[in-house]
Amino acid sequence: MTEAILTHPRFISLEGGEGAGKSTAIASIRDVLLQRGHEVVLTREPGGTPLAEKIRALMLDNRQSLRGEGDEDEPLCAEAELLLAFAARAQHVRQVVRPALQRGAFVVSDRFTDSSYAYQGDGRGLDPAWIAALERRAVGLRPGLTLLLDLDVREGRARTSGRDLWPDRIESEQDDFFERVRAGFRRRAAAEPARFRVIDAALPPREVGLAVAAAVEQWLESPPR
Amino acid sequence: MTEAILTHPRFISLEGGEGAGKSTAIASIRDVLLQRGHEVVLTREPGGTPLAEKIRALMLDNRQSLRGEGDEDEPLCAEAELLLAFAARAQHVRQVVRPALQRGAFVVSDRFTDSSYAYQGDGRGLDPAWIAALERRAVGLRPGLTLLLDLDVREGRARTSGRDLWPDRIESEQDDFFERVRAGFRRRAAAEPARFRVIDAALPPREVGLAVAAAVEQWLESPPR
Repeated sequence: MTEAILTHPRFISLEGGEGAGKSTAIASIRDVLLQRGHEVVLTREPGGTPLAEKIRALMLDNRQSLRGEGDEDEPLCAEAELLLAFAARAQHVRQVVRPALQRGAFVVSDRFTDSSYAYQGDGRGLDPAWIAALERRAVGLRPGLTLLLDLDVREGRARTSGRDLWPDRIESEQDDFFERVRAGFRRRAAAEPARFRVIDAALPPREVGLAVAAAVEQWLESPPR
Repeated sequence: MTEAILTHPRFISLEGGEGAGKSTAIASIRDVLLQRGHEVVLTREPGGTPLAEKIRALMLDNRQSLRGEGDEDEPLCAEAELLLAFAARAQHVRQVVRPALQRGAFVVSDRFTDSSYAYQGDGRGLDPAWIAALERRAVGLRPGLTLLLDLDVREGRARTSGRDLWPDRIESEQDDFFERVRAGFRRRAAAEPARFRVIDAALPPREVGLAVAAAVEQWLESPPR
């Protein structure tokens, strides 16, 4: 009863840590695709549907812990965090990603399953075999192209400091957590070179945008499509 | 990396369909335990913690589909329903059930993992092997005693008709769904006779209460404890 995972050539995901410039990169991808006349659906995880966005809010809401150690303070356990991420993803794939791919659109997702491997697997120490089982059972779909915006953790933190008055639950983690996440992303990219393109996010924003656009253009031109 | 499941003798769950009289049964269980001087923690699923209750609301909220087929209508897919149930359960077990058992209390839960096998497995057709994997990974705990209030589906529906002005997403299912759920519960009870006691919920409420109390008393007196 092991489901197969479909890798779809019109499905592009973007991964990377805090402050890596994902917004700029997404604009670059969108522009390349629109210039060629494609329909482009931009989406994000966790979230992407009204219901999945509500699940995202439960995952990332930090107000309880910011209030201190009162009765209301309920830390979200790692297992529940992972299951919420995949509940949102199951919904996102069925409501948004698959229907868009089926009508011929390109789908560009700000984060996808690789983030679960990196954040809940490498970051929180959950077994990657379990995450793989969830991917097969609840998702069954993988991007044809994944752009990893790779950036030094301290540099990313420096860029985002002051941006968020109220950092969310993930953003409130310590540097060693983000170092494990970064290492996890890089290891996955090295293990799947046909799917991943690693972009040096330490470059100036304009150059990152150009590198992202070049990677997408190369991908669009490369057989097999 | 397969986790073991601990069956705990002070953990009691109550299962059954709509209208089977679970509230009366829980009062009976509580009374038996309190009379003997035990600490009793009454809880429920999905839910049991503030965060898990928010997840419950996402699972059961029916307002979107009651509004009709507008843009806001987003059916919850079976996979997301299952994952939300286990996210809530992971949180419930760590925040409430395990701490209570560890300090010596009895825990009585209105529904537990058997409901996922029955509702999402038998009812919605999801693979029980997947549910078993989630039970091992995210829960790792099983009640020592499970009371199944078994009732004819139509009788249960007749009892609850008019009780809920706004039936939730599960309550809005059709009879054939509840027939599959009931058959699933009965099959699980037959497969695990040491854990399950099946109570005939067609009896008058007072007799159901007595049967529940007798089952719990017998359980408390039976070695091995």
